Amino acid sequence: MSLVNVDVTLRDGGYRNGFGFGLDYALAHAKLSVTGGVDWVEIAYRNGPLQRTPELGLTGRGEDDYISAIAEAVGPEHVGLMLHPNNVDEDDISAMYRAGARLLRICTPAHVPEQAMACVRQAKSVGFTVCLHITRVSQVATARVVEVVADAAEAAADVVYLADSNGSMMPAETAALVARCREAVSCELGLHSHNNLGLAMSNAIAAVQAGATWIDSSLLGMGKGPGNLVAEQWLAYLNRVGPVERYDLGTMLNLAQLLGRTVAEAAPRQSPLDLVLGYFDLPVEARGDIAHDDHRQAVHAAESLSWGHVLAGAVAG
Amino acid sequence: MSLVNVDVTLRDGGYRNGFGFGLDYALAHAKLSVTGGVDWVEIAYRNGPLQRTPELGLTGRGEDDYISAIAEAVGPEHVGLMLHPNNVDEDDISAMYRAGARLLRICTPAHVPEQAMACVRQAKSVGFTVCLHITRVSQVATARVVEVVADAAEAAADVVYLADSNGSMMPAETAALVARCREAVSCELGLHSHNNLGLAMSNAIAAVQAGATWIDSSLLGMGKGPGNLVAEQWLAYLNRVGPVERYDLGTMLNLAQLLGRTVAEAAPRQSPLDLVLGYFDLPVEARGDIAHDDHRQAVHAAESLSWGHVLAGAVAG
Repeated sequence: MSLVNVDVTLRDGGYRNGFGFGLDYALAHAKLSVTGGVDWVEIAYRNGPLQRTPELGLTGRGEDDYISAIAEAVGPEHVGLMLHPNNVDEDDISAMYRAGARLLRICTPAHVPEQAMACVRQAKSVGFTVCLHITRVSQVATARVVEVVADAAEAAADVVYLADSNGSMMPAETAALVARCREAVSCELGLHSHNNLGLAMSNAIAAVQAGATWIDSSLLGMGKGPGNLVAEQWLAYLNRVGPVERYDLGTMLNLAQLLGRTVAEAAPRQSPLDLVLGYFDLPVEARGDIAHDDHRQAVHAAESLSWGHVLAGAVAG
Repeated sequence: MSLVNVDVTLRDGGYRNGFGFGLDYALAHAKLSVTGGVDWVEIAYRNGPLQRTPELGLTGRGEDDYISAIAEAVGPEHVGLMLHPNNVDEDDISAMYRAGARLLRICTPAHVPEQAMACVRQAKSVGFTVCLHITRVSQVATARVVEVVADAAEAAADVVYLADSNGSMMPAETAALVARCREAVSCELGLHSHNNLGLAMSNAIAAVQAGATWIDSSLLGMGKGPGNLVAEQWLAYLNRVGPVERYDLGTMLNLAQLLGRTVAEAAPRQSPLDLVLGYFDLPVEARGDIAHDDHRQAVHAAESLSWGHVLAGAVAG
């Protein structure tokens, strides 16, 4: 097993602080993460997350000069970005490569992957290592997931990620889905997890046992909602179960402490509200946007637990 | 699979607040926990934890009138206590039963189980459902664990718990140890976990798959060091994977919120220091007692991560 680890703190963690990491912190983070043995540091979104907002911090914009600064510090072979196809024009992909990024992670919902597949092809032609991320995979029929994975492999994606965006998957489901995709294609498979149900670690273990080789994690679990797989725990686990201690745990723990000192809101709490969303396979967006269809579903689901008042409160608050 | 869940919040969580729960809170907690579907509420230590301290709160003393009050509220069939054999005299066990407890959990290190076995026999003769807890099981040779489990079964213990006191076990180790004990004896097997490495959930899943049927957890994970398996997450998992939704998740989430509002220090943080201790299989006592042999081992181990300064700082602080 040759496992590839992606540190998503600066990107997914950005949801916790408006993507407002300073350049000095981002440089220190990337250096320590690579020193700790992480393969790729996902340093930003290019041109924002799916729902673009006017005031995006450094790691929400992912501009060329930022990419260059990180690539100069840690080497292009460790620098990755994520994008939503709607947010980029035809020049962005080659510009990112010229600036020094070498990994590109392209998000798509499973029902309309065509635009993302075009991005995959362009990114491959430019020279990127390319991941396609199928978002909210818990809400997609397995057969459809397999079709999209096969299309991505056809488009020469190096990796297809199954993104448990809602933090809702059970370890046995994760294992079954990875195994099903593993049978269908020869490209690498990855898991991006969220920790709504406290199962990010269990899902990562299950995914790797089923054949996934790319795993996302973040320091202190810093990420959207209840956060991601906790990087320092995951790498400690890999050290303990692996044939050699591949990761420099002391460095990763120093990085975790640096992050905690630098960004007060870094470490997510495991909130009951996030647990409810994961339990009912509903997205984090259902937390707050009262006009959102997901929110109405969430209130309805939570009412079945006598919990509708909490979601209503989240909107009011 | 007939799984038995024990809520250890009031007892193991007591390490976080000097066992200083008020009676009103303990009553409310026990009622909600039982309403939520938990089988047994571990309401206290009898006469203190292993290292007795002069100022013990309500759930560190486990006196008769407290037992009676809880038993009256939720029924004796849901009331359990834990004890260390050194802390009790020959009258304690029958007094606890008369007061209304029906589950007794008896701790022992694996190398000197004789006194605990005597307690097991006495508790059985009085009428208790009895668990023997083998502490720090990660530091005990498997063959010795199996011997102690067999002795406990011989003494008619209903359940033998494997206690991962150091939060150090890997899921595959947990599964192998449970399976090995499962082959040797016909009594029930339990798992008590700590979350140093973020593996409490993975270990619980592994233990149950290998044949364990008694699982400890606590609301918000409130417990010693980095805490225990998080009850509300665990029961959500069981609801999702089980044939029926056995647990009232809304009630458990309300209880988690009540606990968080009532006890500020309830929810443990996953600290790097606790992760280091789990990584090296060292006890929580190694955190602070500079004269303790475990502490010297911990400093030595942590120095190998360039982390000795942190343990030294924990002592100074």
